[in-house]
Amino acid sequence: MAGVSTPDLAAAVSNAGGLGSIGVGGTDAPGARSMIEATRALTGGAFNVNVFTHRSPGPDPVREGAWLDALRPLLQEFGSVPPTTLSTIFGSFAEDDDMLDVLLEAAPPVVSFHLGLPDSARIAALRGVGCVLLASVTSPAEGELAQQAGVDAVVAQGFGAGGHRGVFSPKAHDDMLGTVALTTLLLARLDLPVIAAGGVMDGHGVRSMIGLGATAVQMGTAFVACPESSADDAFRAALAGPGGQHTTMTTAISGRPARCVANRFTAWASDHVLTPPEFPLAFEASKALNAAARAAGDPGFGAHWAGTGAPLHRPMAAGALVDLLEEERTSRLR
Amino acid sequence: MAGVSTPDLAAAVSNAGGLGSIGVGGTDAPGARSMIEATRALTGGAFNVNVFTHRSPGPDPVREGAWLDALRPLLQEFGSVPPTTLSTIFGSFAEDDDMLDVLLEAAPPVVSFHLGLPDSARIAALRGVGCVLLASVTSPAEGELAQQAGVDAVVAQGFGAGGHRGVFSPKAHDDMLGTVALTTLLLARLDLPVIAAGGVMDGHGVRSMIGLGATAVQMGTAFVACPESSADDAFRAALAGPGGQHTTMTTAISGRPARCVANRFTAWASDHVLTPPEFPLAFEASKALNAAARAAGDPGFGAHWAGTGAPLHRPMAAGALVDLLEEERTSRLR
Repeated sequence: MAGVSTPDLAAAVSNAGGLGSIGVGGTDAPGARSMIEATRALTGGAFNVNVFTHRSPGPDPVREGAWLDALRPLLQEFGSVPPTTLSTIFGSFAEDDDMLDVLLEAAPPVVSFHLGLPDSARIAALRGVGCVLLASVTSPAEGELAQQAGVDAVVAQGFGAGGHRGVFSPKAHDDMLGTVALTTLLLARLDLPVIAAGGVMDGHGVRSMIGLGATAVQMGTAFVACPESSADDAFRAALAGPGGQHTTMTTAISGRPARCVANRFTAWASDHVLTPPEFPLAFEASKALNAAARAAGDPGFGAHWAGTGAPLHRPMAAGALVDLLEEERTSRLR
Repeated sequence: MAGVSTPDLAAAVSNAGGLGSIGVGGTDAPGARSMIEATRALTGGAFNVNVFTHRSPGPDPVREGAWLDALRPLLQEFGSVPPTTLSTIFGSFAEDDDMLDVLLEAAPPVVSFHLGLPDSARIAALRGVGCVLLASVTSPAEGELAQQAGVDAVVAQGFGAGGHRGVFSPKAHDDMLGTVALTTLLLARLDLPVIAAGGVMDGHGVRSMIGLGATAVQMGTAFVACPESSADDAFRAALAGPGGQHTTMTTAISGRPARCVANRFTAWASDHVLTPPEFPLAFEASKALNAAARAAGDPGFGAHWAGTGAPLHRPMAAGALVDLLEEERTSRLR
């Protein structure tokens, strides 16, 4: 939930008995430091700091140029022009020593990795300051790599989960494993706790995944429309509107497969066979396009990340939602 | 499980306390009659008869010719030539009055529809002879159509389920909903019992889906390798071998999206952008190809339908598997 998670949201979840998370993948070391400090000021409970651990891309001017050319007609429709070059709008924890220093100094109770694993030195350093370590995995093979790397638990991210698919290598074959099969496979293969994610929207879903053998569930889409999130009005309207009835996996927004509310941009992308620039280079272009479209009154170009359970989201205060989840989980009847 | 389910398999499941199924989609009315009679002779319990309810395709010589041309090099490798035209190797219950007569006369306890819904007259006739009616659905919209049509329960077929994806119209957009999200959405939208399917491989998965609110689960891949199924040696070897660690969705085998063990043919298909002939026309070509390949000693062209949980299948007698599922479902620990 990088981009929409906030210290307010994480603290509200932690104060209600969940494990709140802040996603710092979209910001830099100083930004992460201030989010962690703000979270600590709002809760005495444990919380999780989620980082992106991808490999930053090298330049590929031909691919980037072709992509920007393809976007030109859309930008022109909104009276804008594409950028001439693309840059990475955020780094990777796997390479960012300043971010490592912030995490080692702040020593948040939990740190989770998304889009791969950092090297063993970074893992050892975080363990050394007492962080519990989680890693998102999308296949048994990734689960085995995470276990070998020494994480404490894995997040089984099913194909229906919202936002970026946490595949370690975007070029590898993706079996598109759903939450049930992936969780079951990981429980059979690993000696680690498994946290199930993808499509879980209510306390019945929590009970279901615990019944399957998961230790916990990770929920994102269920919390996007909470007042404590920083999702903007267009995002909230997209989730609540007819478009929010359908999500789709697209690489066009950021360069990596990610699930979001289907909108005009995802429809455009599905009609184009071009490969977008590598993650996160494509993000700069889609952000420029969305800004131009928003200025012209068209909300159909936003990165409205959501999982397949999006139609079941309930806009309410995060703490009340955690209470409701627990009430549903422990109820005898659906 | 048309093609691998047998009266022996269905009866063994029913005799152990499950609801055994025979899939008659791949046979005709006399074939269905003898399967139903054989099942009745082996169990006094309830059982289900599953039918395909697609619309039969019209001829499309250009598309068929292009497809057969594309297959020619593969067939030549095995010393064979493509058929010159393609025919439908089985009909649809939606159009087959002989099959309707067989079902009305035999009045099996349960009839389930896959790939769409039959017309209201067929549904009324089956209800009139006391059949409980189920329909596979892959989206909330299909669930609402099934409820309006008057079925007694829906099978929520998640994206990870093996074999043919039960989408009503293969041309419609597919949200690829997984088992958890689809089941939750259907429970929220419908006033019908929901049977969860896709990725459930053990009794912990059964407990999980019941905990989610499902009334039951439907399992197929878990039973393919039972001795009572008619899966051939190549199918069993594919499931147990390294290929069985990965399933993939392909349209190349039958003309409709279906999930199977990844093999040489699915890899070939994923490298070709041609659209295969409409379901079930493509089947005749892939069956010819598989026969030629098998004769030449290559098992990599079979229709080895399996869901994402395939690596977790347990080859054992069906009755013992049902007992084990129940033992796992009611156990306190995973």
